[in-house]
Amino acid sequence: MVSMGPKRIGGFNAAHTISDDEMQALLEAARWTPSCSNTQPWRFLVGRRSSGTFQRIVDNLKPNNQTWAQHASVLIVVCAVTTDDDGKPQRWADYDAGQAIATLTMQACELGLHVHQMAGFEVDGIRSAFALPDQLTPITVVAIGEFDPDADLPEVLAERERAPRQRIGVEELLIADQN
Amino acid sequence: MVSMGPKRIGGFNAAHTISDDEMQALLEAARWTPSCSNTQPWRFLVGRRSSGTFQRIVDNLKPNNQTWAQHASVLIVVCAVTTDDDGKPQRWADYDAGQAIATLTMQACELGLHVHQMAGFEVDGIRSAFALPDQLTPITVVAIGEFDPDADLPEVLAERERAPRQRIGVEELLIADQN
Repeated sequence: MVSMGPKRIGGFNAAHTISDDEMQALLEAARWTPSCSNTQPWRFLVGRRSSGTFQRIVDNLKPNNQTWAQHASVLIVVCAVTTDDDGKPQRWADYDAGQAIATLTMQACELGLHVHQMAGFEVDGIRSAFALPDQLTPITVVAIGEFDPDADLPEVLAERERAPRQRIGVEELLIADQN
Repeated sequence: MVSMGPKRIGGFNAAHTISDDEMQALLEAARWTPSCSNTQPWRFLVGRRSSGTFQRIVDNLKPNNQTWAQHASVLIVVCAVTTDDDGKPQRWADYDAGQAIATLTMQACELGLHVHQMAGFEVDGIRSAFALPDQLTPITVVAIGEFDPDADLPEVLAERERAPRQRIGVEELLIADQN
């Protein structure tokens, strides 16, 4: 049974770095994710803190996200490969990219790392900053690092973190069979 | 580090059933998956083998998938909630549904259960068989059960199963920073 544990309030430890072995484990986990006809429609742009890549990713985050994401140890731009080499749409690209990042997240938990995904970033900004080919659609930015309960957070974000973790009940997730 | 282990050839055990506790654990794992702004854009239609729901799902699978999926203990039609209640598209619906099913898959592994997802099914057939509302888009069917190395598989499928498990190398998944 998945155990949720108590909710933790805080941010990323701005002094932490991810080792090469950890980075490799995270990418291997994503890599082995199943996908539709084994298309593996996910590509990653990886920036470690203090690198130029990292800074250009931060520059393209929404301001609210910049405040805390700048302290992550690594930022990954996740791109779905939305068309194949013949330009044909890959219907399961977004779905499979989500699977890959959920798998990476499990690996991160296993390593004791903290993960926070963002939808709030400038898609066109990322596209042009990294000259992404048309086949790739940036879909999320993933921040990974060490959780720090003493990290400074702007009050508006701290308040959001303090809100209880909530989900719809299982019974509401089930579609009734009308037959 | 994610360990892949040796590849197993076989199908589902047609005599196996999933307990209520196992079913609950699988759905709870999916339920607690993170999602964009906590929208939780996933809904499930669950059919256990021998039920009418299960049979109607099987009826809407592609013939190749029917041969083995009919022996699964449970089939789940995964729907993405592609628009919100105001009809506005939910950009991360497919991505988050993929995350939920990857999380469910991890829980299944933990329980010793086998998972096989399918894209090969009749979307319109499922839509009409279960009178799905327009907000929901069926995206995959997930078969879950007990792995059986002695299960009969048509030769064309057995051959596919015997093919080595392969993935693109990590270096090919990484987008080069052109700057």
